[in-house]
Amino acid sequence: MNAEIIAVGSEMLTPDRVDTNSLYLTGQLNALGVEVTAKHVIGDDRGRLAAAVAAAAGSSNLIILTGGLGPTEDDVTRDAVAAATGRTLAFHQEIADRIEQRFRLRRRAMPEINKRQAYLIAGAEVLENDHGTAPGQWLDHDGRVIMLLPGPPNELEPMFEERCLPRLERMLPPQAIRVRILRIAGMPESEVDQLAAPIYTRYTNPVTTILAGGGDIQLHLRARAADAAEAERLAEEVASQIEGILGDRIYSRNGDPIEAVIGERLRARGDTVSVAESCTGGMLGERLTSVPGSSDYFVGGLLTYNDRMKNTLAGVSEEILRRSTAVSADAAEALAGGARARTGSTWAVSITGVAGPGGGTEAAPTGTVYIAVAGPDGCRSHHVRFTGDRTRVRMFATQTALDLLRRRLV
Amino acid sequence: MNAEIIAVGSEMLTPDRVDTNSLYLTGQLNALGVEVTAKHVIGDDRGRLAAAVAAAAGSSNLIILTGGLGPTEDDVTRDAVAAATGRTLAFHQEIADRIEQRFRLRRRAMPEINKRQAYLIAGAEVLENDHGTAPGQWLDHDGRVIMLLPGPPNELEPMFEERCLPRLERMLPPQAIRVRILRIAGMPESEVDQLAAPIYTRYTNPVTTILAGGGDIQLHLRARAADAAEAERLAEEVASQIEGILGDRIYSRNGDPIEAVIGERLRARGDTVSVAESCTGGMLGERLTSVPGSSDYFVGGLLTYNDRMKNTLAGVSEEILRRSTAVSADAAEALAGGARARTGSTWAVSITGVAGPGGGTEAAPTGTVYIAVAGPDGCRSHHVRFTGDRTRVRMFATQTALDLLRRRLV
Repeated sequence: MNAEIIAVGSEMLTPDRVDTNSLYLTGQLNALGVEVTAKHVIGDDRGRLAAAVAAAAGSSNLIILTGGLGPTEDDVTRDAVAAATGRTLAFHQEIADRIEQRFRLRRRAMPEINKRQAYLIAGAEVLENDHGTAPGQWLDHDGRVIMLLPGPPNELEPMFEERCLPRLERMLPPQAIRVRILRIAGMPESEVDQLAAPIYTRYTNPVTTILAGGGDIQLHLRARAADAAEAERLAEEVASQIEGILGDRIYSRNGDPIEAVIGERLRARGDTVSVAESCTGGMLGERLTSVPGSSDYFVGGLLTYNDRMKNTLAGVSEEILRRSTAVSADAAEALAGGARARTGSTWAVSITGVAGPGGGTEAAPTGTVYIAVAGPDGCRSHHVRFTGDRTRVRMFATQTALDLLRRRLV
Repeated sequence: MNAEIIAVGSEMLTPDRVDTNSLYLTGQLNALGVEVTAKHVIGDDRGRLAAAVAAAAGSSNLIILTGGLGPTEDDVTRDAVAAATGRTLAFHQEIADRIEQRFRLRRRAMPEINKRQAYLIAGAEVLENDHGTAPGQWLDHDGRVIMLLPGPPNELEPMFEERCLPRLERMLPPQAIRVRILRIAGMPESEVDQLAAPIYTRYTNPVTTILAGGGDIQLHLRARAADAAEAERLAEEVASQIEGILGDRIYSRNGDPIEAVIGERLRARGDTVSVAESCTGGMLGERLTSVPGSSDYFVGGLLTYNDRMKNTLAGVSEEILRRSTAVSADAAEALAGGARARTGSTWAVSITGVAGPGGGTEAAPTGTVYIAVAGPDGCRSHHVRFTGDRTRVRMFATQTALDLLRRRLV
């Protein structure tokens, strides 16, 4: 079974508003084993909305509309669904009475326009709204289910859980879902996909999706089966093959970010870490301390943005800065060594480079980054050249630094 | 002229991902006077996507697709648009050569699958991508324009601005738009709106929208008129009234972030700045150095995550740490003073607090933060208590610290 969600309202077609109801609904539907195959936002336009409902009814079993059930001219959802399904709309006095009662309880008279909310599509059932005036509607149409739900989350969510979920559960076969999230560092998306696609494309269950951003790749595997053991077996069958190929490029099997994985390893070893950052200006420290409880292993660090700070704060010799410059393997190693010595941490990670857009030289063009990891087994540095803008270079530099540290903590 | 936006990708049909590219595109289109009448998210399904494109082409002049231009099996946008428009797809060697060159520059071989990105819809023009491998496409079809743009914002945004915007401007009637972006720090959104709404709600032109996040409030005023002088006059009329009420809470009149505003002031004064961070772990340094050219004034800093580092790196006395604890006005002032002394900077900003979720005490519950700014005119500290999770506390702490520094640089 699959679903489409249609959010109704011109205010969600502005540059600053997103539809978040669909995220809630997607979570609820996925838990039932229902896939969301498309989402739409349509303005307060009866004709456009009717066309969207008709199109959705042509390709999905379940269509959920949110919003557009208010009492004003702009509220076109009832009309549009009636038009799309070729059904009539009729006034129901008992619905109007219930809305009027809500107003009476708050010692107010029901405005005449609220009677619009008492129109029901022929054949639809009313979904009572305990938190607002707009009743929802549940319509079985042509083998599909069309739900009309109110837009405000505090009305929509209880209505969905109390009135729709029990109906959906009766309709659907019981189903277990198992999700694996494999996270990969140190490889571009295309390379991960080239290796993993020959495996996962052979399976329609689990469904595999690939996500990439900031040098981090995620493979989401979602397996479904009648029982939990079978869903687990299906997820494991594909995950283990991908793991066999990607090996230790996979840093997480449960979706944990790399900062958390490093934190667990450091905590397990009783080790500590510090940083010395130049072009990333604090981003590496910020990422390591984004994990709650990171004070167990993160001691601190040095932001050595200019040459003088590299010398006075981290003890990088003037000779290295003169001879090799601040963007060099020598400087990266001296920074990591300096941070480790001055903080007394077990490990220290340094980053020095040219984030751009300015500051590049022939020897060290924009995007050039040196990363060093110093630890009990010595200090090693790495040279990388990233493309893209300042933000991207800094994101990739910290991601690479975290991955290099992770590989030393085995 | 109206537009529909179709975001392509199954990952945006999960419970935790929204399509944000459409917000950017909506802002750009609105500025041209183009309304967005519908937005869609379609999974990686060729048939469904082709149907969505065909439907959109039936009711809108401008269809923008984002995503699905990658090199993998999942990337179906090229195929789907070709199918929807009844056009063929053909391999173009010169596109493949350009992609290959990108890989060569990074000293890597182009994976075979990237050749998929060299297929062009018959009649489409290539939109070159300076920031990634996926070229975009611009197709004039049947009196409509269909644009295929890459999904990553750092590829999509420059491509739209450099390649699409000039083409669109030539197509549209001339209209002058003037935008004011007033940015405000140190006030909650509700308070800003309570003061500003009585002014801006009296005007339908300019259109005013309010955005808030991470302690930063933005008021966007968009005025439209037949000529530039009139648009300017309309924008100024409303902006000047709002400025009269909010005063120096407004730190930017052109949308510049607070980090850039501080940078300009420091540069103009010939001053420098350093940081000493505890609970924010580097976020303040990261933010200050997010501005290109920040090496003109940012010298470096100290990440003093535990008490020992506060003592050894920043010289906070053991007595202060014992008597007042690390989360105190005394400690914040000693940290700022220590950073200033050890880096020799004109100004130093320190942050120490409890970001949570753990670590709170009766004297310093979770969300408690002390911020100090040390400068030529002395050192002053500030006590704030933020609500929300770890990320929010850290964002608000750095935002407040930046605003306190800004107010000292007058």
